[in-house]
Amino acid sequence: MKQDILHRKLRAGIVGGGQGSFIGAVAWYLKRSYKSFEEMARAEASLPDGIDFVMVAVPNHLHYRVARTFLEHGIHVVCDKPMTFNLEEAQTLVTLVEQKKLIFALTHNYTGYPAVRHARHLVRTGTIGTIRKVLVEYIQDCPTKSGIAGSVGDIGTHAENLLEFITGVKIAAVCADLTAFIEGRQLDDDANMLLRLENGGKGILTCSQIAAGEENALSIRIYGSKAGLEWHQMEPNTLLFKQPGQPLQVLRTGLPYMSEEASAATRLPAGHPEGFLEAFANVYRLAIADIRRVKSGASPEGGYPTVYDGLRGMQFITKVVESSQKGAVWIDF
Amino acid sequence: MKQDILHRKLRAGIVGGGQGSFIGAVAWYLKRSYKSFEEMARAEASLPDGIDFVMVAVPNHLHYRVARTFLEHGIHVVCDKPMTFNLEEAQTLVTLVEQKKLIFALTHNYTGYPAVRHARHLVRTGTIGTIRKVLVEYIQDCPTKSGIAGSVGDIGTHAENLLEFITGVKIAAVCADLTAFIEGRQLDDDANMLLRLENGGKGILTCSQIAAGEENALSIRIYGSKAGLEWHQMEPNTLLFKQPGQPLQVLRTGLPYMSEEASAATRLPAGHPEGFLEAFANVYRLAIADIRRVKSGASPEGGYPTVYDGLRGMQFITKVVESSQKGAVWIDF
Amino acid sequence: MKQDILHRKLRAGIVGGGQGSFIGAVAWYLKRSYKSFEEMARAEASLPDGIDFVMVAVPNHLHYRVARTFLEHGIHVVCDKPMTFNLEEAQTLVTLVEQKKLIFALTHNYTGYPAVRHARHLVRTGTIGTIRKVLVEYIQDCPTKSGIAGSVGDIGTHAENLLEFITGVKIAAVCADLTAFIEGRQLDDDANMLLRLENGGKGILTCSQIAAGEENALSIRIYGSKAGLEWHQMEPNTLLFKQPGQPLQVLRTGLPYMSEEASAATRLPAGHPEGFLEAFANVYRLAIADIRRVKSGASPEGGYPTVYDGLRGMQFITKVVESSQKGAVWIDF
Amino acid sequence: MKQDILHRKLRAGIVGGGQGSFIGAVAWYLKRSYKSFEEMARAEASLPDGIDFVMVAVPNHLHYRVARTFLEHGIHVVCDKPMTFNLEEAQTLVTLVEQKKLIFALTHNYTGYPAVRHARHLVRTGTIGTIRKVLVEYIQDCPTKSGIAGSVGDIGTHAENLLEFITGVKIAAVCADLTAFIEGRQLDDDANMLLRLENGGKGILTCSQIAAGEENALSIRIYGSKAGLEWHQMEPNTLLFKQPGQPLQVLRTGLPYMSEEASAATRLPAGHPEGFLEAFANVYRLAIADIRRVKSGASPEGGYPTVYDGLRGMQFITKVVESSQKGAVWIDF
Repeated sequence: MKQDILHRKLRAGIVGGGQGSFIGAVAWYLKRSYKSFEEMARAEASLPDGIDFVMVAVPNHLHYRVARTFLEHGIHVVCDKPMTFNLEEAQTLVTLVEQKKLIFALTHNYTGYPAVRHARHLVRTGTIGTIRKVLVEYIQDCPTKSGIAGSVGDIGTHAENLLEFITGVKIAAVCADLTAFIEGRQLDDDANMLLRLENGGKGILTCSQIAAGEENALSIRIYGSKAGLEWHQMEPNTLLFKQPGQPLQVLRTGLPYMSEEASAATRLPAGHPEGFLEAFANVYRLAIADIRRVKSGASPEGGYPTVYDGLRGMQFITKVVESSQKGAVWIDF
Repeated sequence: MKQDILHRKLRAGIVGGGQGSFIGAVAWYLKRSYKSFEEMARAEASLPDGIDFVMVAVPNHLHYRVARTFLEHGIHVVCDKPMTFNLEEAQTLVTLVEQKKLIFALTHNYTGYPAVRHARHLVRTGTIGTIRKVLVEYIQDCPTKSGIAGSVGDIGTHAENLLEFITGVKIAAVCADLTAFIEGRQLDDDANMLLRLENGGKGILTCSQIAAGEENALSIRIYGSKAGLEWHQMEPNTLLFKQPGQPLQVLRTGLPYMSEEASAATRLPAGHPEGFLEAFANVYRLAIADIRRVKSGASPEGGYPTVYDGLRGMQFITKVVESSQKGAVWIDF
Repeated sequence: MKQDILHRKLRAGIVGGGQGSFIGAVAWYLKRSYKSFEEMARAEASLPDGIDFVMVAVPNHLHYRVARTFLEHGIHVVCDKPMTFNLEEAQTLVTLVEQKKLIFALTHNYTGYPAVRHARHLVRTGTIGTIRKVLVEYIQDCPTKSGIAGSVGDIGTHAENLLEFITGVKIAAVCADLTAFIEGRQLDDDANMLLRLENGGKGILTCSQIAAGEENALSIRIYGSKAGLEWHQMEPNTLLFKQPGQPLQVLRTGLPYMSEEASAATRLPAGHPEGFLEAFANVYRLAIADIRRVKSGASPEGGYPTVYDGLRGMQFITKVVESSQKGAVWIDF
Repeated sequence: MKQDILHRKLRAGIVGGGQGSFIGAVAWYLKRSYKSFEEMARAEASLPDGIDFVMVAVPNHLHYRVARTFLEHGIHVVCDKPMTFNLEEAQTLVTLVEQKKLIFALTHNYTGYPAVRHARHLVRTGTIGTIRKVLVEYIQDCPTKSGIAGSVGDIGTHAENLLEFITGVKIAAVCADLTAFIEGRQLDDDANMLLRLENGGKGILTCSQIAAGEENALSIRIYGSKAGLEWHQMEPNTLLFKQPGQPLQVLRTGLPYMSEEASAATRLPAGHPEGFLEAFANVYRLAIADIRRVKSGASPEGGYPTVYDGLRGMQFITKVVESSQKGAVWIDF
């Protein structure tokens, strides 16, 4: 893991700002800067020491344009979410990534938590049995600056992504009831959904930005034929493991019984809390490892959210909005 | 409160058993016993020291017959839930209670918890503001003896009752997706529902008897325009109170800031845990106080679940089953 | 267990009040009453249907006199704590109980919790290994009516009793620092103690009645050579079980993995909270079972706090006060 | 805050390794390396672009020698703890720091948590009233690699430092009972202490490295004449605030009611967990800000643990060991 941290040979660029000021950086210390991201992509692609990948951290409405531009110039991308504004744009990025054989990582950062990765491990190894019921929530108080995407676009996609990431089971149909409670809001600030999973399991997804007094309450509970799991983003180093007739087990990151995958995402000994930033960094670490692999001719190994997760998120939003607009009816995926 | 506990003047009967053995009791120590509940109702109604009220604690399928019989003989009833098997029977009991002007208490025992009563108080006094979102759950592991009513009938009605009891807002429409996961089960062992409330609020109700490792996880979270509330049956003496931008408050039974209604339902000082049995007894205490009132010519004051809650529960089950059978579509109440 | 609940053949008396009004009862419904406890003891001892045992629920300063009087008349005693005012009185009661071969139960009610009994079971069966460290606390906010005994006498003895009850290991020496923080208090309202246990283990006991905002926070943590335990009175149905390198286990009353002893003290299924009153009643049930045994010529089986626990408590108070008065020095038991 | 993060003008060196391999770095990317720390200190002190400060991250037994060497060459120091091996060495460093007017930061990292800083703020502003009772704990399972310092030196000093940091009240006397439970251990692996505070308050400090199943359980509870506080390192973003007769308040980092000092130490919005590394970094940020101040001729402002905290820690260890060796008697500070 140590050699991943010291990424001596990769050159990173960043595009931020968005009000006309764009910056390009190598190895965190500004070496070159540009007035536009188009100029930056063009220049860096042609330089002998041009950047290997770019981090897209501009305002949401620019994600697509910036990401597409760097992909077109053959530069790997790590992009903040939401990936695009609509399904068509998402499909364009997928096509570009496939044509150019580039790495595209989407920072669905919650997948970077070690306990989330251990949850996925327990599902994959059959410990939970067949997934029957999933309850996933992302609940917040009214944010002072609300996103323009509505609660489903802002946070609902995190919940959807978490569900499919951990369970490996796809949502097959949704019945969604969206509401805008706060006067003047154009888009939903609350959403309740029934889910049907492709394997016959059932679920509930609720996201809200009108939940008085809540902070950033993303959580998931999974019940399978053999056991259950529970995880709360606000206590991220704990994973509850529930077996019928057995004592509840409190699994904790940093302890020897955790899976290799969870341990690889853990920096500190048990009881030394890690948090949001470390989870975010874990997504970066995995993406950078893959960029290094493809640059050295090896195959990428994945393990982080990609352009396909971005496409999936846009499909999810599209179906959810369609369901709600038709009166909260079932829509197949 | 003390004088309520020592109910010297009321004579209580109980009907239990159900396999052919019925018992009638006065003041807990068996004075008279009967071979059938019909015989008991007839005899007690004609005795000078006959019972004032009967507790119906027979198996679920007999609730209706026993309750009706005692009502017909003019005896007040405290009945376990579910009240009846269908809507028609529920309507019959309502009519009987109204005609005979009798007290009919239904032991929706969870309404008896002091913290639940304080939650209702906070809603009633406007502290929460307009109810916008309600998340209510009743989740259990597979019970060794499953009820014949399905999860909605067994436990879903507790969740529905709790929602309407605390918020004072009625469910206006439901979209319910019921599943029988366990092989061989005739009825649902899991249900996910979207709710629309009569005041424009939205909600989710989920109940399950396939939630591996869960015990008796009834909980409710309420978000209003001003504040939020959270209560968990398994930590019944705690009520979480959430205000935007303010510290979360942990309200605890037995402390001086609790409402009069909550304090009246509390027996012990703060930190001396009360539980399920005390909540159950609180429903009895309120019902018995009303029986005493009507016997002395006063008007009943309520505050406990009645025959109308039983009717409401049957309506709920009926609508939920209809919704699910039609493919999880919206059904108005 | 059912047959224990219906204690048809035992006749119980109660002595309460204390301001000159004493009452004697049989089977909860007052059959006979008396003007003094001396008269009651004398009369009941000579009646053919006289009481089998008496419950001593008078103010603390009368416990000794009332208990002694009934013992002298050959009547079994269930006595609230503190048992006596000083060590000499405690010794007198021990002698009386031994001479008369009577049952004497002391309501150290916290020993009645099922999770406490399971903790003792885990220690007894060697699951915890050799006891090395014990942290026991009893912390409260300033009570509105403070006991006259000081914090050590009021609540410290509960902590001491809990420690020795669960671990089976005796305190061998104490170094105690007592303080009266509240102006005008004659006795301690706070105490911190180092403990040395007879087996070489070490411990801390702290009790306080100046802990702002605390309710009734009795807790114990035990660390042995193999595993650890943690229990909190305010979440009484949960016992934490800690093994090195293993997931923390949350043991819960009412589940099949609990010991027979814990299950026998549990009335309700898992997830249906039991509390303080049920724990209190468990002490009564065990005492009454023993009274029945000795009345039928069998040997008592114990399992509840007795006159020896009362004696031990008085020794504890005596040693603690001596230690503190000498400047918080070590005093051997 | 942003300008603190980008410390463009300060040049940092690091001394690590310790088995003969020492490294010197500028701005994280190795510019120069050395075979010994003596050589590094000498060379860097004479270079025009020599380092401004050094981070001492060598094994514990070398802290003193390395720190002293760089101080002697006029280079500011950020040093891991324990600062020295004994009191004399600590005094030497204090003298050097005072003579040379250098910044010396000691990474008592737990003081860097925002909730700890808010706790200190609440004490300083009188919200808690006069400190009466403090319970501070640092409890761990047997570490696989135990420190050579014993539990008091390894972790007890963190507890001592946290107590004095938050309360601003000094420990005046200690009565300490140290034990080595694990066979073959030279020094204590467990310690229980009674504390007397300079203001008349009382306390308990316990640290242990034999607490089966515990992770890194540092916690503090403070009770004053007006209110109480509780903080647990393993849930670092939460601070419990307890007022008599009022609801318990759960204070959370990132929310607007937190003090300016706590907010300045917080990077992310509420509900986005921060952890151990961010707390550590907060100590660095404050130290670096002071180094910048003194380099620009301004006065240092402090706010982080310094050479005086290191001296205090050595005094604490010395007194504790003396107390225990004399049989756990009281030793004044």
